[in-house]
Amino acid sequence: MPRVSQDHLDARRREILAGARACFARHGYEGATVRRLEEETGLSRGAIFHHFRDKESLFFAVAEDDAAAMMETVRRDGLVQVMRDMVARSGSPEVRGWLGTQLEVSRRLRTDPEFAKRWAQRSEAIGQATMDRLETQRAAGTLREDVPVHVLRQLLQLALDGLAMHLAMGRDTDHLAPVLDLIEAAVRRS
Amino acid sequence: MPRVSQDHLDARRREILAGARACFARHGYEGATVRRLEEETGLSRGAIFHHFRDKESLFFAVAEDDAAAMMETVRRDGLVQVMRDMVARSGSPEVRGWLGTQLEVSRRLRTDPEFAKRWAQRSEAIGQATMDRLETQRAAGTLREDVPVHVLRQLLQLALDGLAMHLAMGRDTDHLAPVLDLIEAAVRRS
Repeated sequence: MPRVSQDHLDARRREILAGARACFARHGYEGATVRRLEEETGLSRGAIFHHFRDKESLFFAVAEDDAAAMMETVRRDGLVQVMRDMVARSGSPEVRGWLGTQLEVSRRLRTDPEFAKRWAQRSEAIGQATMDRLETQRAAGTLREDVPVHVLRQLLQLALDGLAMHLAMGRDTDHLAPVLDLIEAAVRRS
Repeated sequence: MPRVSQDHLDARRREILAGARACFARHGYEGATVRRLEEETGLSRGAIFHHFRDKESLFFAVAEDDAAAMMETVRRDGLVQVMRDMVARSGSPEVRGWLGTQLEVSRRLRTDPEFAKRWAQRSEAIGQATMDRLETQRAAGTLREDVPVHVLRQLLQLALDGLAMHLAMGRDTDHLAPVLDLIEAAVRRS
């Protein structure tokens, strides 16, 4: 297959994921009907389901894509920076899309054992990305030494989960920056 | 009305709330049909809706009751202790009931502006209970002095929200105790 076609396929796939993410965020998984997915992506159902077997696969791909993007940022800038970005852009389509996906994932984990099994690997990978970054920081001497790295990872994860819930409850984010400073200070060498 | 009748009415009301909480936790708001509410409380729909106008009012009463219980514990033992208790009894009916209510409240806040308006006062009251406790601790000299009390309150709230999300995602709670130690240390005078 010539290279240009693969590029085209990849671009189309990203286009579908972006539209689907917005659609899931706005209407929830159940409310994201095929018609709404068509409207949001500007593509026909034939085009959409040429790339993804069904709505279930499409949602999983959106969630996987979000997880991959977060892992990338965590490896580069750390989880505290991910949270700072979210607070700074809490009303943006990107953050609303991420939040919608998170809430749907959390609902699925409670209600769909098959999904929970598939998702466990993704979840493990994000945790590992955070661990890798913390290990690097510990080696560089910027991390506190009196607490195991996995406890620091769990503290950051708890803060991220808290941020998701905070945003989900529509609470304002005006005063969260100094809270993230405290979280960051809690993992650093003092 | 003679005192015994009022006691009886109160007891009946508590009985309905306990059954309804379990029912909402197990089936979600939509899934908690009148028939299921009857089964879970062991009372007829007539008896249930003698005390509560409709399912909506019943849910609000359950959520209010949870909020009042939490406020009571926060005033007495602080929010960190509330979280420690939740971690220790994460599989118990009480914690599952609280979590079910939290998730339903968070869904409502996103989708139901009328509910959001009614809930704002309750939410404010819990925040105030936490503030009161922190102010007392600051007066007693056990709290750090270099950060405003409202920031410490938000840190604790973020941790509580994170714990709710953590439990909602079915993650294990084995390693959360040392994380709560870090949170507690982050608000105390070092």
